[in-house]
Amino acid sequence: MQEFIQKIIADNKKYIEKGTLPAYIPELTKAKKEALGLSIVMLDGKEYHGGDHRYKFTIQSISKVITLLLALEEKGEEYVFSKVGMEPTGDPFNSMLKLETVRPSKPFNPMINAGAIAISSMIEGRSSMGKVEKLLAFFRQITDNPDLTINENVYLSEKRTGDRNRALAYFMKDVGVIDKDVEGSLDVYFKQCAIEVTTQDIARIGAFLANDGIDLKTGKTLVHKKHIKIAKTFMFTCGMYNASGEFAINVGIPAKSGVGGGILATVPGKMGIGIVGPSLDDKGNSIAGIQMIRDLSEKYKLSIL
Amino acid sequence: MQEFIQKIIADNKKYIEKGTLPAYIPELTKAKKEALGLSIVMLDGKEYHGGDHRYKFTIQSISKVITLLLALEEKGEEYVFSKVGMEPTGDPFNSMLKLETVRPSKPFNPMINAGAIAISSMIEGRSSMGKVEKLLAFFRQITDNPDLTINENVYLSEKRTGDRNRALAYFMKDVGVIDKDVEGSLDVYFKQCAIEVTTQDIARIGAFLANDGIDLKTGKTLVHKKHIKIAKTFMFTCGMYNASGEFAINVGIPAKSGVGGGILATVPGKMGIGIVGPSLDDKGNSIAGIQMIRDLSEKYKLSIL
Amino acid sequence: MQEFIQKIIADNKKYIEKGTLPAYIPELTKAKKEALGLSIVMLDGKEYHGGDHRYKFTIQSISKVITLLLALEEKGEEYVFSKVGMEPTGDPFNSMLKLETVRPSKPFNPMINAGAIAISSMIEGRSSMGKVEKLLAFFRQITDNPDLTINENVYLSEKRTGDRNRALAYFMKDVGVIDKDVEGSLDVYFKQCAIEVTTQDIARIGAFLANDGIDLKTGKTLVHKKHIKIAKTFMFTCGMYNASGEFAINVGIPAKSGVGGGILATVPGKMGIGIVGPSLDDKGNSIAGIQMIRDLSEKYKLSIL
Amino acid sequence: MQEFIQKIIADNKKYIEKGTLPAYIPELTKAKKEALGLSIVMLDGKEYHGGDHRYKFTIQSISKVITLLLALEEKGEEYVFSKVGMEPTGDPFNSMLKLETVRPSKPFNPMINAGAIAISSMIEGRSSMGKVEKLLAFFRQITDNPDLTINENVYLSEKRTGDRNRALAYFMKDVGVIDKDVEGSLDVYFKQCAIEVTTQDIARIGAFLANDGIDLKTGKTLVHKKHIKIAKTFMFTCGMYNASGEFAINVGIPAKSGVGGGILATVPGKMGIGIVGPSLDDKGNSIAGIQMIRDLSEKYKLSIL
Repeated sequence: MQEFIQKIIADNKKYIEKGTLPAYIPELTKAKKEALGLSIVMLDGKEYHGGDHRYKFTIQSISKVITLLLALEEKGEEYVFSKVGMEPTGDPFNSMLKLETVRPSKPFNPMINAGAIAISSMIEGRSSMGKVEKLLAFFRQITDNPDLTINENVYLSEKRTGDRNRALAYFMKDVGVIDKDVEGSLDVYFKQCAIEVTTQDIARIGAFLANDGIDLKTGKTLVHKKHIKIAKTFMFTCGMYNASGEFAINVGIPAKSGVGGGILATVPGKMGIGIVGPSLDDKGNSIAGIQMIRDLSEKYKLSIL
Repeated sequence: MQEFIQKIIADNKKYIEKGTLPAYIPELTKAKKEALGLSIVMLDGKEYHGGDHRYKFTIQSISKVITLLLALEEKGEEYVFSKVGMEPTGDPFNSMLKLETVRPSKPFNPMINAGAIAISSMIEGRSSMGKVEKLLAFFRQITDNPDLTINENVYLSEKRTGDRNRALAYFMKDVGVIDKDVEGSLDVYFKQCAIEVTTQDIARIGAFLANDGIDLKTGKTLVHKKHIKIAKTFMFTCGMYNASGEFAINVGIPAKSGVGGGILATVPGKMGIGIVGPSLDDKGNSIAGIQMIRDLSEKYKLSIL
Repeated sequence: MQEFIQKIIADNKKYIEKGTLPAYIPELTKAKKEALGLSIVMLDGKEYHGGDHRYKFTIQSISKVITLLLALEEKGEEYVFSKVGMEPTGDPFNSMLKLETVRPSKPFNPMINAGAIAISSMIEGRSSMGKVEKLLAFFRQITDNPDLTINENVYLSEKRTGDRNRALAYFMKDVGVIDKDVEGSLDVYFKQCAIEVTTQDIARIGAFLANDGIDLKTGKTLVHKKHIKIAKTFMFTCGMYNASGEFAINVGIPAKSGVGGGILATVPGKMGIGIVGPSLDDKGNSIAGIQMIRDLSEKYKLSIL
Repeated sequence: MQEFIQKIIADNKKYIEKGTLPAYIPELTKAKKEALGLSIVMLDGKEYHGGDHRYKFTIQSISKVITLLLALEEKGEEYVFSKVGMEPTGDPFNSMLKLETVRPSKPFNPMINAGAIAISSMIEGRSSMGKVEKLLAFFRQITDNPDLTINENVYLSEKRTGDRNRALAYFMKDVGVIDKDVEGSLDVYFKQCAIEVTTQDIARIGAFLANDGIDLKTGKTLVHKKHIKIAKTFMFTCGMYNASGEFAINVGIPAKSGVGGGILATVPGKMGIGIVGPSLDDKGNSIAGIQMIRDLSEKYKLSIL
């Protein structure tokens, strides 16, 4: 496998040139565009790495999966889905359309920004700092990496330019989806997006999902299996922005991408995959990353369908 | 005319029952639902009043007309219309749809909330308090009423519950329509909406517009004639929320309503009309007020078409 | 006036280059792009002409005004507006959006294609040929031109490529706005759009509207005054596609344009104006024509506001 | 298993009362509302049946899966997806919104009506009758049921009231998605929807998909494995109208429902499931059918995630 990882990285270097860095978060344009890294974590704990697997990038939308798990654990399925829907939406990740046109007004799923902000607003805690601490602890536990921290520059950059997310949040406050302090909820959201990771961290999250929420090391169940199933299903139906359908057909495994260039993928019962490649296509997905995971899926027949 | 005013008020009392007070601004539900008042100001300065013409109500969306005039005077036509369009929109006054779906993203006109907030953000001044002071001075000059003030309770109520307007404002910040402090701009907007008036004040604004921007008392031109024309045209094409087309056909004079129950109307070269009736129809227009102005228009053949 | 007409035509020749002919109706691309004509008919019957006033073009959307009048006369206001609304819409003339998103589903006004097709479907008659004959007779009466006929090539071209209009019509059949034979209704619509006119014909229609529905020659009332008022109001609020608001501000008179390059305008109590200039702007309005009518309006202070 | 099938049917009888028959296709309201049937076909050919498994119903939208397979076989992936997308859409199955608002204009996937009609228009053949014959032969082969035919009454009922589908088709003709005769394409579509089946037929289709396109009896590959994978993925992401996301989470197997009350489901490598229950929920899915398949999935742990 180690060998194939090297080959995949070499084969897909050429795609880097075709993508771009996301200009709407100024700090992200400082990323190393040509970075390309891949980590795989098997359920027996064995880890494989290749390329820039030590390159640090912010987790961005991949965090939506983990925050969803925490909200499900804290508040339960019924509450979570009273506020956020379960359906894919063909609209861009930052769209407000359906909030206005579909009744009752409720974000369609937790993978689009509106839904993710609503989920972040559910995390319990006295202060937004307390909520972020708890969230960070949960991330550290799942990745078995006590050093995970927030990239302050990226956080501040997103907070400064996050007016579209602010618009989504205030709209949801108006219609009762968010019933708490909007700026505090946004703060949690901006911070969770700015958590800095490597492909190893991401692959470990993938393995944790593949292992149905059971810690690989300790064997302890950290998250209910049903909640893990929910997360994997959302990853499969709407994890890759509005290229999710195409990805499901061509790759066929639950995955979630972020505009930091990361892709989290999970092969149920088999492995977790972490990828980084900051150069994005026009949907917001790592352009080389998608090709790499496609190659992996074909080689090892990972598709679940 | 005095007599006909009494008759109109008596005739239309029956409509009050059919309408409601706007629940989304809690403070407005304290209004006197059965109030009904009418004032007419002729261009020679003669004034006629009937019913609850001393009843105080907040000006709400009627303020959009005057703020537009001030912005046009301060920034000029070219600047104003680089940020806000000139077209009616068939959408509700608080809609965000077209901001997302039409390129370039720009509120369609200054009579919908998005456009009005953009206009308020243009008013020049060091602080939002300074801007409000200037705006208030302008209102006082046009109404010849130095006692006009802001109803603090209504202002605070709108500020507290104004999350939909906040969503509109942050969206516009994101797309560059608003380039200043959003909360400050909203503060100006919430305050202008909470200016407390009587039908006399409103009728005087109507007479000022009917007189092409020339002060009735002093004969001094306060606003460019072209700017007055622009305001009257917007009132005609989109002054009555999304019942503007119906109103244009059935009444046929430029008018602007507010959810405080007021209606401002202007008959070019003839008179200004101020109406109050806080009980609203489902579009947000005074239900008895619309009937009263329709009766007036038919009796005195005021329609411009 | 004759002199000023010449000057206007000369002054605005330059705009022709900036526009285009409408490619979606192949036959219309055969029009003489550089034609520019203007006719004015005063209410005393005096007529002024300039430029290519003998140039023949198809009436296209301008026909919507006359068909609306006939439908109002035949079916009455109540019936007509039970099927078609009175509100401007900020959407393109061929949009289906609001039919799907706004309840009850009903075209917003008779000037957009959906509304105009619904109006055409109301014209009474045993066959679509009979309806078209009646419509043509009505056009001939108003223009005092017994020679008006349909341009068969344009009619067939529109029929052949009119799938978007077909989509609108079938959607309206589905929701009950159209309760008759769809293809027959479309046939009436395509034929009314293909009536061939000169600026003289158009100016006479404008004078007829300006004269409140009274035949200039015979003094006989052909159309109820209220129906004329309705037509003029729609022209003012939504006659120039989605540049109607801008036109209302800059020109200020009721007008209706067609993609054949014609513009019909009416100055209440004063005159009718007919313009042709087949080169269109991106909204579908004659690019030089709009400038010509703007010059006319400024010179003779024709704006109604 | 036979026993559990009986139990499931008994347990879910109660849901029948809560649903309704689809009024927009008059002929479908004649269905036996209380019918409830279930068939399961294992990959070794073993079949289990329960309840009204001999009840005949029209296949409706379930046919979209099979027509897609035929189109993929005839025209190839590249051509098919040049005309129809791969993405779920949060809109109702008969929506036109995205055709107008998203560029390039192309139905989002083959499971919504617009996409399915586009797919039907691709089937090759000299006449629409020839295409339908070919399609029917394909259905008969997959179900191993040479007696499958079209319910003429349902076909004619849908043809007569199918104006919304007609609107979709003409819109797609206008934008170039459909390049052939619209009425002919609709005829194929209406007929494929009116094919009459039992749960046994449906379960056999499910087994064929579960067996990767290999005929259970003959062992011959009838459809490319990649095409089967595409169909299964669409079933998983958008097979249950706009309750697909919820179904994916709660049931977790690829499925497709039709307004005739049928549900097709496939458990990769294991079995095919056919269900009928004509009483529908507000999304258009069999209300008892969904519960039955949920029970099955839980009992036998069929979820793929």
